[in-house]
Amino acid sequence: MTRTIVASATREIVIGFDQPFCVIGERINPTGRKKLAAEMVAGNFETVKKDALEQAAAGATMLDVNAGVTAVDPNATEPGLLVQTLEIVQSLVSLPLSIDSSVSAAIEAGLKVAKGRPLVNSVTGEEEKLEAILPLVKKYDVPVVAISNDETGISMDPDVRFAVAKKIVERAMDHGIKPHDVVVDPLVMPIGALGDAGRQVFALLRRLREELKVNTTCGLSNISFGLPHRHGINAAFIPMVIGAGMTSAIMNPCRPQEMEAVRGANVLAGTDKDCMTWIKTYKDYKPGEAAAPAPVAVAAPGEAAAAGGGRRRGGRDARRAAIG
Amino acid sequence: MTRTIVASATREIVIGFDQPFCVIGERINPTGRKKLAAEMVAGNFETVKKDALEQAAAGATMLDVNAGVTAVDPNATEPGLLVQTLEIVQSLVSLPLSIDSSVSAAIEAGLKVAKGRPLVNSVTGEEEKLEAILPLVKKYDVPVVAISNDETGISMDPDVRFAVAKKIVERAMDHGIKPHDVVVDPLVMPIGALGDAGRQVFALLRRLREELKVNTTCGLSNISFGLPHRHGINAAFIPMVIGAGMTSAIMNPCRPQEMEAVRGANVLAGTDKDCMTWIKTYKDYKPGEAAAPAPVAVAAPGEAAAAGGGRRRGGRDARRAAIG
Repeated sequence: MTRTIVASATREIVIGFDQPFCVIGERINPTGRKKLAAEMVAGNFETVKKDALEQAAAGATMLDVNAGVTAVDPNATEPGLLVQTLEIVQSLVSLPLSIDSSVSAAIEAGLKVAKGRPLVNSVTGEEEKLEAILPLVKKYDVPVVAISNDETGISMDPDVRFAVAKKIVERAMDHGIKPHDVVVDPLVMPIGALGDAGRQVFALLRRLREELKVNTTCGLSNISFGLPHRHGINAAFIPMVIGAGMTSAIMNPCRPQEMEAVRGANVLAGTDKDCMTWIKTYKDYKPGEAAAPAPVAVAAPGEAAAAGGGRRRGGRDARRAAIG
Repeated sequence: MTRTIVASATREIVIGFDQPFCVIGERINPTGRKKLAAEMVAGNFETVKKDALEQAAAGATMLDVNAGVTAVDPNATEPGLLVQTLEIVQSLVSLPLSIDSSVSAAIEAGLKVAKGRPLVNSVTGEEEKLEAILPLVKKYDVPVVAISNDETGISMDPDVRFAVAKKIVERAMDHGIKPHDVVVDPLVMPIGALGDAGRQVFALLRRLREELKVNTTCGLSNISFGLPHRHGINAAFIPMVIGAGMTSAIMNPCRPQEMEAVRGANVLAGTDKDCMTWIKTYKDYKPGEAAAPAPVAVAAPGEAAAAGGGRRRGGRDARRAAIG
C-alpha cells in the first residue's frame, strides 16, 4: 500500500488510497492576488496569518505556502520571503506544509526551516528541474509533487503525460527516492475547453494508481475554468477523482460546497470511519447552509485526518434497515 | 455500445454509457406517503399531477409511476389504479414512463395503456417473478429493470448479487429479450450501516458494464439512509456512480443539490455536449441558490436528453487557457 508521509513538528499525515482525501489548502499564494503580493513585499503577513487560520479551521489537511511575488529578481528575493512565510505559518498552525516555489534556491531555503516532513511543490519532467530538485528531495528526505509536463510543454495526449510521470518516478529512483515519495500531478485541463478533460484525468489516475502505484494530486479548480457556477463543477469533480483514485488536491478548503464533496466522497470511499467526520460536521446541518461560510464550530482543524472515537448518530436505525 | 431505448408517444430517450445520466423521477409513488395513498384511493390525482409537472420542470428524463396503495387485495385494486395514474401522467407530460409495481397483473394492465416504449420496474431473480414478468417484457417489446436479489433475499456478498444479475440477463435471453433491454439494479445499501456499501456498488457497476455490458440503475437515496444532511451524501454519490458506469437512477429530481451533481457529472463524463445544459441552467446562478427550489425557468423539461445547438459562454477564454 502506497503511503506518503508528511508532517509538521507535531502532526503526521499519511496520504494514501485507504486514507481520507488530503486537502492541501491553496490560499497562501500571491499568484494572481496583487493585494497579498504587495502586503508580503511590504513585510505585512496579516492576510497570510488569516488564510492559515481560516484554512485550518475549514478542515484543510495541510497547507501550501508560496511566496512568489514576482519581484524583479525572484532568485534574490523569494528565498527570504518564503522562509519568513513558512516560519509564520508553522508558528500559527500545526498542519504539515507544502513548500511551493519555482525557484530552486527558495525550495532549499524553505527545506532548511520547515519542521517535520514538508512536501516539495514541485518538480517537472524538465531536465534542469529534475537535476535541481531531486537532489534536494533526497538530501532532506521529503516527498515531492511531480507535474507531468516537460520541455515540450503540457501534452494534450494523456499517454504522453503518463510517460512523463513515469520518467520522473524513474529519475527519482535513480536519486534514491522511493516512488511512494513522488506525488504525481497528471494536470487537469479546463473541461469547458476540452470536452474529454474529465475522462482523460480519470483514466490517467487509474493508470497512475495501478501501474505506477503512486499517490496523486492536482490543482483542482482548473477543471471549471471559464464556466458559470464553478463550485458546482468542482463539487462534482471531487467525488469523481476520488473514485478514480486521486488521493490529494491543492484546493480552497474555505469553500463549503467543495469541502462537503470531499467529506461525502470520503464516506462513500470508506475512509471516513463510521461516518464520524460527516456526522460531526453535519449533525446540526440546516438546509440553505450549503453556501454559508465553512462550519468552523463543528469541523475541527485537521479533521480530515481524524480517525476513531466519536459518537455515532442514526447508525442503529440505518443498520436495521440494511440487514432487517 | 449498449443502448436501452425508452419512449413516450412523442419522445424517445436513449439510456447508455455515452448518454447524459437518465434521471427517473421517483415521486409518483404512494409507498410511505400516506396522504398521497389516501388521495389516490379516493380518486384524487391532484398530487400526482403536481408531482408529474414539477419533476418534468426540474429536469427528469423519465418518470416512475407506482400505484401501490397497499389495499386489502392489491391484485384487485392496483391494476385499475395504475392504469388511471399512467393515463393521467402521460396526458400531462411528454416524458417516457416507468411502470412500477410488484403486482404482475398491474404491470400488464399498465403495458396495455402506456404509449411509446415504457420501462417495466421490475423483475428480480425469483423464479415466480421471472416467469411472470419476462413473458410480458417480450410480448410488449419493452425494457425491464432487473433487481439483483432472489428467493434468498439480498446478499451482502457483491459476487452473489452479480451472479443473480447474470442469471436474470441469461433468463431474459432465453425469452428472446436482448441484454440491452435489461437495466440492472445492483442494490444500494445504506453507507451508515455498511461501511463498504459504496465500494461494493462501484465495483459491481464496473463488472456489470464491462462483463455483462448492461445499463444500470438504483434507488439512489438509500445510500444516505440514517445519516444527517442526506442530500450532501447523495450529491457526492451521484458523480461517483456515474464515474463507475451507472447510467440511470430512480431519484427525486426536485432536489437541486442532487440535480446539480447529475449535471456536473454529465459535464465531466463528457455527455453534456459543449457544457450546454450546464451553461443554460447555471449561467445566472448566484451563490446561496444551492438549496433553493429547482431552477424551473432555466431547466427545460427533459433537458438531460437535449443535445446540440445553444450558445456557448466562456468557452473561448477557457480554451485559450488550456492551449495557450
